[in-house]
Amino acid sequence: MEKMNKEITSRDKDFAKWYTDVVRASHLASYSSVKGCIVIEPLGYAIWENMQRALDDAFKRTGHKNVYMPLLIPENLMKKEGELVNGFAPEVAWVTEGGEKHLDERLCVRPTSETLFSDYYHNVVKSYRDLPLKYNQWCSVFRWEKETRPFLRSREFLWQEGHTVHATNKEAEEEALKMHKIYKEFFENYLAIPVITGRKTEKEKFAGAEYTLTIEALMYSGVALQSATSHYFGNKFAKAYDIKFLNKDNKLEYAYQTSWGSTTRMIGALIMVHSDDYGLVLPPKIAPVKVNIVPIKNTDRVNEYIDKLKSKLDKENITYEVLDDDKSAGYKFAESEVKGVPIRVDVGERDLDKNVVTLTRRDTREKIEVNIEYNDITVVIETLLKTIQSDMYERALERRNKLTFEAHNLDDVKKIMDTQPGFIKAMWCGSEDCENKMKEIKGLKSRCIVDEDPIDDKCAICGGKAKHLVYWGVQY
Amino acid sequence: MEKMNKEITSRDKDFAKWYTDVVRASHLASYSSVKGCIVIEPLGYAIWENMQRALDDAFKRTGHKNVYMPLLIPENLMKKEGELVNGFAPEVAWVTEGGEKHLDERLCVRPTSETLFSDYYHNVVKSYRDLPLKYNQWCSVFRWEKETRPFLRSREFLWQEGHTVHATNKEAEEEALKMHKIYKEFFENYLAIPVITGRKTEKEKFAGAEYTLTIEALMYSGVALQSATSHYFGNKFAKAYDIKFLNKDNKLEYAYQTSWGSTTRMIGALIMVHSDDYGLVLPPKIAPVKVNIVPIKNTDRVNEYIDKLKSKLDKENITYEVLDDDKSAGYKFAESEVKGVPIRVDVGERDLDKNVVTLTRRDTREKIEVNIEYNDITVVIETLLKTIQSDMYERALERRNKLTFEAHNLDDVKKIMDTQPGFIKAMWCGSEDCENKMKEIKGLKSRCIVDEDPIDDKCAICGGKAKHLVYWGVQY
Repeated sequence: MEKMNKEITSRDKDFAKWYTDVVRASHLASYSSVKGCIVIEPLGYAIWENMQRALDDAFKRTGHKNVYMPLLIPENLMKKEGELVNGFAPEVAWVTEGGEKHLDERLCVRPTSETLFSDYYHNVVKSYRDLPLKYNQWCSVFRWEKETRPFLRSREFLWQEGHTVHATNKEAEEEALKMHKIYKEFFENYLAIPVITGRKTEKEKFAGAEYTLTIEALMYSGVALQSATSHYFGNKFAKAYDIKFLNKDNKLEYAYQTSWGSTTRMIGALIMVHSDDYGLVLPPKIAPVKVNIVPIKNTDRVNEYIDKLKSKLDKENITYEVLDDDKSAGYKFAESEVKGVPIRVDVGERDLDKNVVTLTRRDTREKIEVNIEYNDITVVIETLLKTIQSDMYERALERRNKLTFEAHNLDDVKKIMDTQPGFIKAMWCGSEDCENKMKEIKGLKSRCIVDEDPIDDKCAICGGKAKHLVYWGVQY
Repeated sequence: MEKMNKEITSRDKDFAKWYTDVVRASHLASYSSVKGCIVIEPLGYAIWENMQRALDDAFKRTGHKNVYMPLLIPENLMKKEGELVNGFAPEVAWVTEGGEKHLDERLCVRPTSETLFSDYYHNVVKSYRDLPLKYNQWCSVFRWEKETRPFLRSREFLWQEGHTVHATNKEAEEEALKMHKIYKEFFENYLAIPVITGRKTEKEKFAGAEYTLTIEALMYSGVALQSATSHYFGNKFAKAYDIKFLNKDNKLEYAYQTSWGSTTRMIGALIMVHSDDYGLVLPPKIAPVKVNIVPIKNTDRVNEYIDKLKSKLDKENITYEVLDDDKSAGYKFAESEVKGVPIRVDVGERDLDKNVVTLTRRDTREKIEVNIEYNDITVVIETLLKTIQSDMYERALERRNKLTFEAHNLDDVKKIMDTQPGFIKAMWCGSEDCENKMKEIKGLKSRCIVDEDPIDDKCAICGGKAKHLVYWGVQY
């Protein structure tokens, strides 16, 4: 295998190269022989499992159930809702042969499953008493991307897609908003990533949705990342797939739907918000291993203390890994750093003479001597994990605030983009023309319409009457 | 939605029809508009999640890590190991178009992932210090089956596939055996299904394996089900994919591999071993909901007691569902039965007058009055759950023993198969000719070679010298 202390390009020098270096050096993922697809390696997958557990718990607490729909979608079924199929047509993969025969009808590898859920709901929804149905599925989806980057844009990625059906538009809209809030909480509390919440413009919303709610995060470099979306469909799909139910007055009515999703792209966000030139930095809540233990030398006394520490950590359910192979201490420090383990505990003879062990925070690389005679080491570790989690959030928030700018006209926008890209707050009249004009400036796109106080009464682009305050940004 | 108390065909009258009736009536799965594929509905998926959790814990305890490999495999990569590709060629689906273009090379929807794991191991295994690598993945696979049945044989199914690579054949063989034992334990302890363990014959082993270990279960009807397999590859794949490492003597050597898998077919086994004419019967350990609570009438006193019961169950982490909509008590009883919930607790005024509630075991449909003044209800429930679990295993074992026969010649075999199919123990000389002769008798196949005392010294088929004791059976 590659050496752990492989060099990582400086983040400030070449952010894109730094990103892929971190992915490879920390063994989150590797390239595969399948074009545009990655192999998610143990560390990457363990992070994904922690994300799944936290989100899945939140989904189940709010009454959602998991199901599984087929991987392949017949072309005919896919085509029933026109906007969706037009949105995805350029980027799907088609199965045309099966069981050594050419197929009569092509089957699309699912890029998303609105069609299959709608077809299912068409079959099972008969009466208002069947509603709501609030289902979710964890699976992989496939989109034929041209340029790919690990976790950020990959032909195949893992995700969850929630699909719900309701008797009223009010209930469906509440559902879309509820899931939007769950994503926001997850990003802030688990991933330590502050997010802007708002609504996508007509141009940027999901194909087939009435509207799309989004959470948008800002990466260290000032680039924006669409992080999880929640769509309200009204009864567009219900009409296309004929999902009708008998209401309380015994009349047939079309149902209302939502969908919402989050993906392995969140791993990319973790890297681009928190990590540094030494490798990955993981927020404690999502880190698969919270503590690395490094014996400086494997003497009897050191081993004895480590055994005691292990059983204490076991008791408190704090995950750890002892780095006790025959590599050098320096190599182990680098290994622990590159993998983003929140706390490293070094145990050495000289420290034990003084009744101390040395803790190192991964996020700040700060060293802390802990007297083990007067302190309960697990309490110190638990407190420090909490401190790291909240400090990481605060630093990310500070960085985002620093890179959030106000613009009152196109000159402002250009000046900002020439200096340091970030979130640009600017008023907008609501026209697609103005969005297109912004795009000419280094590819700026509307990230979302926010519910904040207006900063002007006219559109920063055309000078017309302003309708909305919009966050703009360059996207991954 | 369909009514819960939909009629189920009698198991003894038409086993195949009974099976699909149970799947549909209990809402485990439904047919989809995608030919040969099913929709796994909430109850089916919740059972799968419980299976995943128990197996995944066992895998992790034994040092395995989860990863994720791509869904699509380029034809060229697939073809490197000849036996595997020949084994799967007739049943794969091919992607030939992507991103609106015809592809230069077809991509196969994974039927299994030996090729991708081997390609990955080729890239990362360099030295004996990198070994062993013990990885597993949870995913869906696709095989173009002609005749399909929910859970038992479906074009797409969910599974886990473990793939490991080792420095020595000894270690790899130990790994294959260890996983084989984990499957056996899981079947017996969690699914309450006794299994026969042994080795597949050359004819029946996995394409590309040196040998295959299998656990075989017997269904209520006497049909056998191959339930989970574990393969030792020697260095066949290592040679095809060039997986070499520097050993301790600094010499290049081919590595040794295993793979092992279990699938959603296990849900089919649960049905065919335990369920009855009233629907599903779930072993408590795998049941998503352990207890149904039915208020006979929603009076204040009944509701008050149910609230108390709920908080007690919460405290003991016993999952429950209260059936408190406006349907009749009879309808609720049928609903609880068809879904296989292990214990039903009926709470009514008349019972509360006597300080009792009535428990009903799903497996035996037996009613038990529990005095709630003198008994801790959660202790009673916990004990009963354990009793149900072990009783279900004992009954399944009894049934299997009753349907396990010895045959000393082909006449014996024919007589057994004319009366009641089951496991047939018979000696075998080791020749494929004899296996083919057995197959002429209603499709009998060798299930596995077992490590039990021989029952004869000559082959039951040709009369030649016997080599092995084999269990034979008709398969799903």
